[in-house]
Amino acid sequence: MSKLLIFGHQSPDTDAITSAISFSYLQNQLGKNTEAVALGEVTDETRYALDFFNTKAPRVISSAADEADEVMLVDHNEAQQSVSDIDKVDVVAVVDHHRIANFQTANPLYYRAEPVGCTNTIILKLYKENGIDVPKDIAGLMLSAIISDTLLLKSPTCTAEDEAAAKELAELAGVELEAYGKDLLKAGTNTADKSADQLLNSDAKNFPMGDLTVRIGQVNVVDVDEVLNRKDELLEEMASQSKAEDYDLFLLVITNVLESDSVALVYGDQKAKAAEAFDKEVDNDLILLEGVVSRKKQVVPPLTKALS
Amino acid sequence: MSKLLIFGHQSPDTDAITSAISFSYLQNQLGKNTEAVALGEVTDETRYALDFFNTKAPRVISSAADEADEVMLVDHNEAQQSVSDIDKVDVVAVVDHHRIANFQTANPLYYRAEPVGCTNTIILKLYKENGIDVPKDIAGLMLSAIISDTLLLKSPTCTAEDEAAAKELAELAGVELEAYGKDLLKAGTNTADKSADQLLNSDAKNFPMGDLTVRIGQVNVVDVDEVLNRKDELLEEMASQSKAEDYDLFLLVITNVLESDSVALVYGDQKAKAAEAFDKEVDNDLILLEGVVSRKKQVVPPLTKALS
Repeated sequence: MSKLLIFGHQSPDTDAITSAISFSYLQNQLGKNTEAVALGEVTDETRYALDFFNTKAPRVISSAADEADEVMLVDHNEAQQSVSDIDKVDVVAVVDHHRIANFQTANPLYYRAEPVGCTNTIILKLYKENGIDVPKDIAGLMLSAIISDTLLLKSPTCTAEDEAAAKELAELAGVELEAYGKDLLKAGTNTADKSADQLLNSDAKNFPMGDLTVRIGQVNVVDVDEVLNRKDELLEEMASQSKAEDYDLFLLVITNVLESDSVALVYGDQKAKAAEAFDKEVDNDLILLEGVVSRKKQVVPPLTKALS
Repeated sequence: MSKLLIFGHQSPDTDAITSAISFSYLQNQLGKNTEAVALGEVTDETRYALDFFNTKAPRVISSAADEADEVMLVDHNEAQQSVSDIDKVDVVAVVDHHRIANFQTANPLYYRAEPVGCTNTIILKLYKENGIDVPKDIAGLMLSAIISDTLLLKSPTCTAEDEAAAKELAELAGVELEAYGKDLLKAGTNTADKSADQLLNSDAKNFPMGDLTVRIGQVNVVDVDEVLNRKDELLEEMASQSKAEDYDLFLLVITNVLESDSVALVYGDQKAKAAEAFDKEVDNDLILLEGVVSRKKQVVPPLTKALS
């Protein structure tokens, strides 16, 4: 049996990395031969979780077909967020919690999506359905993903299932949810030693909306000004990347994880239309997004509606 | 709470009709307000099952947005197999066992696909996961779908899970699997009083392959000649429908349900290429497909590969 690769999306966040690890462990317990890999380097936040729970970061790959015929996707499904040669491998399973778009297979497959806050909340159900125990360190990684995706259960994407899963996993992992959660989120908010490119793209995805390609990055901070002080530098980088990659619109959503508010830095011809999506105007290249913390639930749907 | 509509694909077969009924019952038990509807009239086979298990055929709809904001899809996901105005409603759940293609949502949703032989095999799992008992008549309808989709457990699409589900459902429904199964399949093989259009389209679907639109119908018989005697009439109808609907290729897969063999009647410029997909040649507008009974597993994948 040849090896199956399992990976999350490009610019991996904590859920993309850890859901590959937790789903790969489950699949291997069920008799498959899989390896969790990643489509990019881990973030500071993910590194904190991996170190805390004694786990090595997955190997980074840039193509899959040279080493595997079959892959499983976690925490994404859209081709443009996946490995570059996704069209050359068979996707045999997907576990995800996003919209479905630009995803196509020739054959029937296993696809499990639920509208919950975190892929690992679904994976915990899969462990239970298959009667497999979650090891302590993997429980800690899964918990870290839920904390990361729901901003410590505060995001509107957080469901009762995510909350119950987080509590159960914290117990299994032997940590105190609130204290560990704050430490984890803070570990991901260091922006000072990051380049403009890193701020823009560490957690960024492309979204086709109508005929447009919209790039949306998100960065978590405890002090928004730390990033806004570098606005000119960021806009210059957004302009150059938009030209090189044909983005029609580039947003950087800067989220204060303690206050649960965001402001979006925007670049591109469509920026006024983007602001309208939120009943706002662009002010100095910024759109104020009060109460917005979720790209998936609070940013992508209104933008898709306005631009499609 | 407004009503949610649940439906299977156009040209509904027994699984498309009964999975809407069984999934709607489950959703209503879980507190949702749903109605099972259909995108076409039921076949003779489905009628036999509905009559046997005291159930009325679902109401036929031709559009959804005029009466519902949200829908759930069963036994299909591709837009061109769905209701005509699928782009005007929100798909909030899908339960399916086919490839995923031409399916797109703006929001996260519940999506449950597994590579098993029948949608109702998955729905039986959902009853169990939610702790809901399957009523006797619904068990009989679900069983009928498994028999229909797997040709009484003989199709290569039939998995161990389908077989176990069929046995369990036969028990719940109070019928003997083998005897009821043969009666059901035979009820669906009466071709004498059907028009050419009915033979072609009673169980037909469109498949985009590359830039081409391929129409594939399937008809179950106990005597292949009963259909082949009407070859000229069928080819004439295929020509006229291909012109009207812009099909690039039209196949009618004629399957002997007792022998588990098929022969395909083909029309269109691409027919030689279609034959090559099976390492065959077209002989008198026919391609012999020994051992082929499953459109999904044995017809669509090689054709997709050859034509894309």
